[in-house]
Amino acid sequence: MFNAKEFVENSLKDIQKIAGDRKVISACSGGVDSTVATYLVHKAVGERLVAVFINDGLRREGEAEFVVQTLKKLNIKTKYIDAKTEFFAVFKGKTDAEEKRKAFRDKFYKTLGKAAKEEQIEFIVQGTIKADVIETVKGIKSQHNVLEQIGINPESYGYKILEPLQDLFKPEVRKVARELGLPKEISERMPFPGPALSLRVLGEVTPEKIAVVRKATEIVEEETKKLGTFQNFAVLHNDKATGIKKGERVYGNIITVRIVDSTDAVTAKARKVPYEILSRISERITEEIPSVVRCLYDITDKPPSTIEFE
Amino acid sequence: MFNAKEFVENSLKDIQKIAGDRKVISACSGGVDSTVATYLVHKAVGERLVAVFINDGLRREGEAEFVVQTLKKLNIKTKYIDAKTEFFAVFKGKTDAEEKRKAFRDKFYKTLGKAAKEEQIEFIVQGTIKADVIETVKGIKSQHNVLEQIGINPESYGYKILEPLQDLFKPEVRKVARELGLPKEISERMPFPGPALSLRVLGEVTPEKIAVVRKATEIVEEETKKLGTFQNFAVLHNDKATGIKKGERVYGNIITVRIVDSTDAVTAKARKVPYEILSRISERITEEIPSVVRCLYDITDKPPSTIEFE
Repeated sequence: MFNAKEFVENSLKDIQKIAGDRKVISACSGGVDSTVATYLVHKAVGERLVAVFINDGLRREGEAEFVVQTLKKLNIKTKYIDAKTEFFAVFKGKTDAEEKRKAFRDKFYKTLGKAAKEEQIEFIVQGTIKADVIETVKGIKSQHNVLEQIGINPESYGYKILEPLQDLFKPEVRKVARELGLPKEISERMPFPGPALSLRVLGEVTPEKIAVVRKATEIVEEETKKLGTFQNFAVLHNDKATGIKKGERVYGNIITVRIVDSTDAVTAKARKVPYEILSRISERITEEIPSVVRCLYDITDKPPSTIEFE
Repeated sequence: MFNAKEFVENSLKDIQKIAGDRKVISACSGGVDSTVATYLVHKAVGERLVAVFINDGLRREGEAEFVVQTLKKLNIKTKYIDAKTEFFAVFKGKTDAEEKRKAFRDKFYKTLGKAAKEEQIEFIVQGTIKADVIETVKGIKSQHNVLEQIGINPESYGYKILEPLQDLFKPEVRKVARELGLPKEISERMPFPGPALSLRVLGEVTPEKIAVVRKATEIVEEETKKLGTFQNFAVLHNDKATGIKKGERVYGNIITVRIVDSTDAVTAKARKVPYEILSRISERITEEIPSVVRCLYDITDKPPSTIEFE
């Protein structure tokens, strides 16, 4: 049986031993994994930790403000980096899922590495958990925070990696979050991928397409928050379809709604969501987002599907 | 109140008056509209009608054989044209929905016109119904069998048009089919678009993609035939998504399942199909079609969506 209290105690000692009196940087996305990792290191090394929030332009509605506020409330020294323009630039012309992931990852580590250099920091904290390692090793996905497994030498970016959660699965990370007294919005936070909304725009990622999927995501989250599912989100297709808006034929966007139950993200079941909820989502999305004419609901389990589309 | 018997009597007289002792050709796809139109004209002019079945390579599993057999049983003189290669050639490089429709329509009328010329025929029968005319005039879609409304002069193809059903809506056409004693497979047949499976392959139409959507369509029709819905079908996306097959990460095809209730196709409701049925469809499609990793269910009504995707 996993003992969160014991884990925290051992973890703090381990981190102190590794870091010594050196400075540590942690990119915190606001997800449970990276926030727990950040807070653990903060507790271990105090002011020698600098948390970084990289605004890549791919976050959900209000998310940047929420994360910065949360870190502030936790008294963690925080650096906000606005890198929206740079991130959109690397996506230009890229339509392949793996190419997009690579572009994101590279820009992410370059941005983080630059910040680390500016602050003369040697260690970078990563919220890697066990499922990330397993799936990356198995080739199911290339998780951006499992550098070694994908053949990247972290030191080439100019730093060493500290991964305090690498032996935990998601439910254990949540237990640690509760043990640490983190707010519910963090400890119970829905998983959200590192490359954020860029994985949920099929084809080329542009600011306009991110705005569409951001709004659709907000609607899906609002309408499904009572379901208690593992993950609820929206995906914007690159394909278009015919529809009718204001009595006129248009060729518009397609949004897929994905709602799954899972404990560890390794397998997942498409939730059998009541049709009243799906109809309301479909109505809101097609009414509130002018370019969208069609909503689909993903009915596939993992496997044979993955949770995300890319 | 519509009187099918009276309609048939008047229709036969009208057709005889228009055709005189000239020959007539009818392209029959096996749908209720074109089969009723073909059979009406056959009853009116007998052996002076030649029915044509154009195999464009875009028909559902077993459909070509079914239509030819049906016409044979009805004692209608029938000509079978294998135009599969020619149709796939015109789709090459075309990804825009309207361009694809135009390419289909043009190839269709050229093929029919050539057959008419060979047989020295002046009149072509069309199964146009009132909804086709209304939607084409409104610009909701460009129906391939409403030539005049889309600015095409039929005589430029070398013939005149005979449209015996142009004042009827779909339920009335079915009544006429029953009145004429046509088999149930025809009178109750699910609507199927003229350009067939080409509308259900987003992006470029190729023989390989048609094979995928044909198999998915067969599965959807088998699993939903007891629902009694207006239309049930599958659509193959051009977008791809990640999935897991035999434990390996793959980048595979996406199929959408569309099941709607409607009386006249002018408006439609997405059917709230029980999840047991949707799960079975998703499982069968992802198991029986190796390239497919994901199944979606269309939850949008018409409007704001259309029934078909293109």
